Amino acid sequence: MAEPRIFVARSEAAAPFYIGIDLGGTSVKLGVVDERGRPMSWLALPTHRHSSAQQTVQRMGEAVEQVIADAGLTRDEVIGVGLGSPGTMDIASGMLLEPPNLPEWRNYPLRDRVAEASGFPVTFANDANAAAYGEYWVGVGRGLKSMVMVTLGTGVGSGIIIDNLAIDGHHSTGAECGHVIIDHRPTARMCPCGQPGHLEAYCSATAVTKRTQEALAAGRPSSLSARLALGDELSAVLVAEAAAAGDALADEIILETAHFLGVGVTSVMNVIDPAGVVIGGAMTFGGNATPLGRRFLEAVRAEVRRRAFPVPAAKTKIQYAELGADAGFIGAAGLARLTHRRRDRIGNVER
Amino acid sequence: MAEPRIFVARSEAAAPFYIGIDLGGTSVKLGVVDERGRPMSWLALPTHRHSSAQQTVQRMGEAVEQVIADAGLTRDEVIGVGLGSPGTMDIASGMLLEPPNLPEWRNYPLRDRVAEASGFPVTFANDANAAAYGEYWVGVGRGLKSMVMVTLGTGVGSGIIIDNLAIDGHHSTGAECGHVIIDHRPTARMCPCGQPGHLEAYCSATAVTKRTQEALAAGRPSSLSARLALGDELSAVLVAEAAAAGDALADEIILETAHFLGVGVTSVMNVIDPAGVVIGGAMTFGGNATPLGRRFLEAVRAEVRRRAFPVPAAKTKIQYAELGADAGFIGAAGLARLTHRRRDRIGNVER
Repeated sequence: MAEPRIFVARSEAAAPFYIGIDLGGTSVKLGVVDERGRPMSWLALPTHRHSSAQQTVQRMGEAVEQVIADAGLTRDEVIGVGLGSPGTMDIASGMLLEPPNLPEWRNYPLRDRVAEASGFPVTFANDANAAAYGEYWVGVGRGLKSMVMVTLGTGVGSGIIIDNLAIDGHHSTGAECGHVIIDHRPTARMCPCGQPGHLEAYCSATAVTKRTQEALAAGRPSSLSARLALGDELSAVLVAEAAAAGDALADEIILETAHFLGVGVTSVMNVIDPAGVVIGGAMTFGGNATPLGRRFLEAVRAEVRRRAFPVPAAKTKIQYAELGADAGFIGAAGLARLTHRRRDRIGNVER
Repeated sequence: MAEPRIFVARSEAAAPFYIGIDLGGTSVKLGVVDERGRPMSWLALPTHRHSSAQQTVQRMGEAVEQVIADAGLTRDEVIGVGLGSPGTMDIASGMLLEPPNLPEWRNYPLRDRVAEASGFPVTFANDANAAAYGEYWVGVGRGLKSMVMVTLGTGVGSGIIIDNLAIDGHHSTGAECGHVIIDHRPTARMCPCGQPGHLEAYCSATAVTKRTQEALAAGRPSSLSARLALGDELSAVLVAEAAAAGDALADEIILETAHFLGVGVTSVMNVIDPAGVVIGGAMTFGGNATPLGRRFLEAVRAEVRRRAFPVPAAKTKIQYAELGADAGFIGAAGLARLTHRRRDRIGNVER
């Protein structure tokens, strides 16, 4: 696991401390975070697809001990654990219901099992909301009153934070901005969730691959055809490489993706009107560090400026995420901190 | 002004008391509401399109005195005023910016002027959010943790309440669910706001009239043609009458409207995941009291059941509003009560 971009040594850290856990389909990321949101120690465990949930939770308990020791802390300096998990879930009861990439974890009382294995109280959250909270607390969203985060990867994840409150939703399915409907027609592109017209069906890496495939099949000329003839497999990464190298079709596909994302972001802005929108995930083409990443963001911003109400169009900050893959465990730790700092779920806590 | 559906006499009322004001394009509705959300006295003032804002505000101040006296109260039993106003606005500064139907009120410091004229502190809110809060506090949404309200009229208004907090938005343009984009194409139907593809362009009374006009122009047979030949003007009311009388085209138009609304509601549900959705406004065809109203609601529910995630599809309550045109001033009074009951904007108050 790469070193987090921000971190702090024991001697500089601010008490008290929190554990953040980010449960993913291929690994568990886990770390100690200080009162100001800075990681002090961290590690990653593989989530073997066919290990039992109980075995993995047991290892998570041991890993919690280890990161506390690595941070130079004792257990009694740690307040609690925050746990971000993929859905579907029931947050109130702490149940993992049907995580698509973790078949062994179906209907599993994750929150309580992790509490038993770690010996700490556990705050349970959706992984995308945890990541959004990480960016809100100490990432690019710090200082904003409200924020929507959209994560572009194989699918399109999202989280919404308003006044320090993560929008979990009444049925634990809140903030699924990847599933705003941008085309009402039954013939619209089909989302992996089984419904037509969702943003994810246009903007995920999977969707970029599919749209490119269709354009090539329709006979559009592109340097990609030669790559495929050489045996390369078509992927969003390949499309991005071709776009970066000047391929017109690949470039058009990427800019169309920005257009679709701009439509979805505007739609969500018209509902939530956040102070900022944060875009993260692998499908940001290297982000601010690459010309293609910068062009993509500029195209999203242009679409939003064209479509949103004048004041939010001019003022809403649309930026790339800053914490990368660390946002999840840092944000989960932040949510544990919120639980500690407030009595109710309403969020009357300063960041 | 018709009598509110719920109200309470002085002898039965619960102290303390609040004033609610609902500023509209044609009238100001204004009343005293008790601690439990029940109106005690109320009146309506016309808002003459060409009266100066200051004249109207002066009359509002006098009307506040009158409703307090009518309720049998003294000024010191009243805590404050809640004021719902059409946008655009800036809530933080209390400014009305550009209300489209109140040209004399452009860039007007409404909150502070009403505070001066009434002698009470004023809580300033968007009118649609105030109405949503009314339904949430004492209407069909009472008991729900979170709620989205969509009001179908000449346009499509909306409000969102989550955990007792109205989603004003960071730039005071929150909860404009009429402006979710249900068709990303530049060729989509044009919304009066100037942007293509918004829900309002498909579901407002104006949109129903326009869609019917197009169908008739395309030669679709309908009893409406004879009505128009007799000199009736095409309107959503006329379409509803024809549908209620069994006209197949009018019925199809109404059910298509339910389909579009179901798409928009699902899209917002996928973002917010509220406990309930409340549908109000004139375009509900008499609501639960008429067969057409009941069919329309059932068609919206069916579309949402088809399109939403399984748990919210099964559990989210989708109902007609209950307070009618009183929701605005009752909700505005409720927002004044919230201001009184909490120190911050976060909402940690029991309803």
